[in-house]
Amino acid sequence: MNEYDFEELCRQALQLLEEKQYVRLRTVLDTMNAADIALVAEEVEEEALPLLFRILPKETAAEVFVEMDSETQELLIQVFSDRELKQVIDQMYLDDTVNLIEEMPANVVKRILRHTDPEMRKKINEVLQYPKDSAGSIMTIEYVDLKKDMTVTQAFEHIRKTGVDKETIYTCYVTEADRKLIGLVSVKTLLLAEDSLKLSDIMETNIISVNTLEDQETVVQQFDKYDFLAIPVVDGENRLVGIVTVDDAMDILREENSEDIAKMAAVTPTDKPYLKTSPFHLWKARVPWLLLLMISATFTGMIITSFENKLAACVALTAYIPMLMGTAGNSGNQASVTVIQGLSSGELKFSDAFRIMGKEAIVALLCGLTLAACNFAKMMLVDQRGIVVALVVSLTLPFIVICAKIVGSGLPILAKKLGFDPAVMASPFISTIMDSASLLIYFWVAGQFLML
Amino acid sequence: MNEYDFEELCRQALQLLEEKQYVRLRTVLDTMNAADIALVAEEVEEEALPLLFRILPKETAAEVFVEMDSETQELLIQVFSDRELKQVIDQMYLDDTVNLIEEMPANVVKRILRHTDPEMRKKINEVLQYPKDSAGSIMTIEYVDLKKDMTVTQAFEHIRKTGVDKETIYTCYVTEADRKLIGLVSVKTLLLAEDSLKLSDIMETNIISVNTLEDQETVVQQFDKYDFLAIPVVDGENRLVGIVTVDDAMDILREENSEDIAKMAAVTPTDKPYLKTSPFHLWKARVPWLLLLMISATFTGMIITSFENKLAACVALTAYIPMLMGTAGNSGNQASVTVIQGLSSGELKFSDAFRIMGKEAIVALLCGLTLAACNFAKMMLVDQRGIVVALVVSLTLPFIVICAKIVGSGLPILAKKLGFDPAVMASPFISTIMDSASLLIYFWVAGQFLML
Repeated sequence: MNEYDFEELCRQALQLLEEKQYVRLRTVLDTMNAADIALVAEEVEEEALPLLFRILPKETAAEVFVEMDSETQELLIQVFSDRELKQVIDQMYLDDTVNLIEEMPANVVKRILRHTDPEMRKKINEVLQYPKDSAGSIMTIEYVDLKKDMTVTQAFEHIRKTGVDKETIYTCYVTEADRKLIGLVSVKTLLLAEDSLKLSDIMETNIISVNTLEDQETVVQQFDKYDFLAIPVVDGENRLVGIVTVDDAMDILREENSEDIAKMAAVTPTDKPYLKTSPFHLWKARVPWLLLLMISATFTGMIITSFENKLAACVALTAYIPMLMGTAGNSGNQASVTVIQGLSSGELKFSDAFRIMGKEAIVALLCGLTLAACNFAKMMLVDQRGIVVALVVSLTLPFIVICAKIVGSGLPILAKKLGFDPAVMASPFISTIMDSASLLIYFWVAGQFLML
Repeated sequence: MNEYDFEELCRQALQLLEEKQYVRLRTVLDTMNAADIALVAEEVEEEALPLLFRILPKETAAEVFVEMDSETQELLIQVFSDRELKQVIDQMYLDDTVNLIEEMPANVVKRILRHTDPEMRKKINEVLQYPKDSAGSIMTIEYVDLKKDMTVTQAFEHIRKTGVDKETIYTCYVTEADRKLIGLVSVKTLLLAEDSLKLSDIMETNIISVNTLEDQETVVQQFDKYDFLAIPVVDGENRLVGIVTVDDAMDILREENSEDIAKMAAVTPTDKPYLKTSPFHLWKARVPWLLLLMISATFTGMIITSFENKLAACVALTAYIPMLMGTAGNSGNQASVTVIQGLSSGELKFSDAFRIMGKEAIVALLCGLTLAACNFAKMMLVDQRGIVVALVVSLTLPFIVICAKIVGSGLPILAKKLGFDPAVMASPFISTIMDSASLLIYFWVAGQFLML
């Protein structure tokens, strides 16, 4: 066996295409995985793209098409003949077709729908009607459907006959005439069972399924917990309407994670690769948040202004403002991110709110006292600002940390309860709120000690 | 079919255990998934735990054991008879045994190893020697091994005979006598092929595999890209030593994500559920970072102190310090988090460094100018501080944003190059660096305009 070195293969393919050595190009493409051919397609010049695509064997072509980014897909559809378009669409699984339709402009969508047969069109429309990010919107309908009276041999015959078009054959679903889901059976179970047994004897009847309207995050949590290869999606009457496969669950997990992280850093999430995103698009994803946070910082300015005279009376206090605001932001962050993760993995719920905030208060007290002690020592030994200023700054720390951790843990829970994404409540917002809060606490403590 | 309502089933199981209704308890447990029974086990009193466990059928017992948290596992091992321990260990897959061993204290490990047969012990020791988070350390050795001269019928016979103990049977590996991996074949291909065909005719020979020493992040990237159910792990001589299955890849993806997010928020990652972590442990995971960042903030204090006289001459400038530091931190964050994600998904590499920082500089210029314009308008119309102060603050903004985005995007790339985790270079560190940088820029700009 040769090592599969996809970068080398991509390079070769691009070079052969440029040199118009199409026979050798096809040989190279034959050894490549669809995902890697798609990467090649994304690199080639617009004019050479249809050529590259037409060199591919028909079965591979549709697979490669699905793996491409939406820009390349759109370019290709525009040059496809009607017959080519129909061929590709026919080979695609429903979930991929729906993804494609969701990303194409209206005129392209019309053309795609014109080339799907009426039954498929009806199914596509059904899936498109499910809310964004619901189980229904991400499912596929190409699953293996068995009946409970079939024997193991009959089941295998059915799988052999229909399996080639199914997204997975390894978990098969047993339904009644009205499409009610009554059991499931894995190919492993079938392979290890006696040929003459009926499915009703060997099928699993404690079925974990998700409703079409369930959020995709819940779907991923089920995969996480139960290590499924696929999960059935049922409607309100427990009729099987589709399945979600583990590769899609993994994509969603990665996507939801990137979205969460982007939101935590105050960036509007995009699913485009960074190197392909224009600076203008990056600007658009970032500047609204920077503006919003800049305007919110007006409050900190106002607070400082209103204490200007007092600060002038004890200038030393100004030097510690950044440290206190930083500590407040960092403490709040730690709490908010911990809670956001707990909420997204399903561990934490709204009903845990008081338990969480109580725990955070204790942790905050411990952290606050540690910081206060270290800071007091540092200010006395290194900064030598005098005991009063050292006391004021050090005593401010526990108050700030407690406040930050309670706000930081409370806000994401509140956001979730109100139906917002808790991730938006992460670092930048907590920091901005805590900037103001820490200044107010600082000036209050200073007022007590320094009689300002 | 009854809806599978795991919370209701858990509640019932706990109640039946308390009421000592063991026959009915067993009926309820029979309908439950192993992952959910493990949740019940984690809830029960220490004394009732062995009882609950002994009610379970032998095959289920090992599955449930694997799903438990390590505390519950340790409690159980301590009450297990030698025979019980051996039974459970024998039923476990190698990767789960290795996980268990890694989490147990030394005396428990010794007892576990005493109850594994010598061959297994040798294999466990091999896996334990791979570096932490390498493909070798997470793989399992229970895969289906076929030979290229087998017919489809013979392959199925082999799968039927050995499949029950394999972690997955759906991807089978074709090896030569010296264990060299020469092909793979899926059960789907086998099912759809003629019975008399030889594996050498139908097996896939362009094999994507990972080396035992490859980082687990790379393993996950392969699953992401190619939608595998399992990936073969080979040694330096391309000999098959194990496989990683998709459920483990998904666990690693979630784990790596939580670790990244924790590091980004300056928390030491832990894999314990939040509600089960004591405040003392949370304190330990958080306070070192808070201390480190607090001490680093000394620089900002020093900078402000050294400009104290100048600030006193134009007190209005103080009010904008928090806004400028906030904007610097937020801008840096946006860039660093975007780059960290690109690095972790495999999209960005060290060789892209200049392209990335160039792009960030352009985005920063766009963002900086937008912020400057809005801020100038706001300061003139709302704050009414006079045109000079408004100009100083507004002109500072583009410089700060450009500096923040270049530092924010450059540091994670540098960290990766130096072999550190880029995630540590996220928000808190960038913010702390940018706090000092933005003050220096601010005072420099102010110096130019105000002749301070």
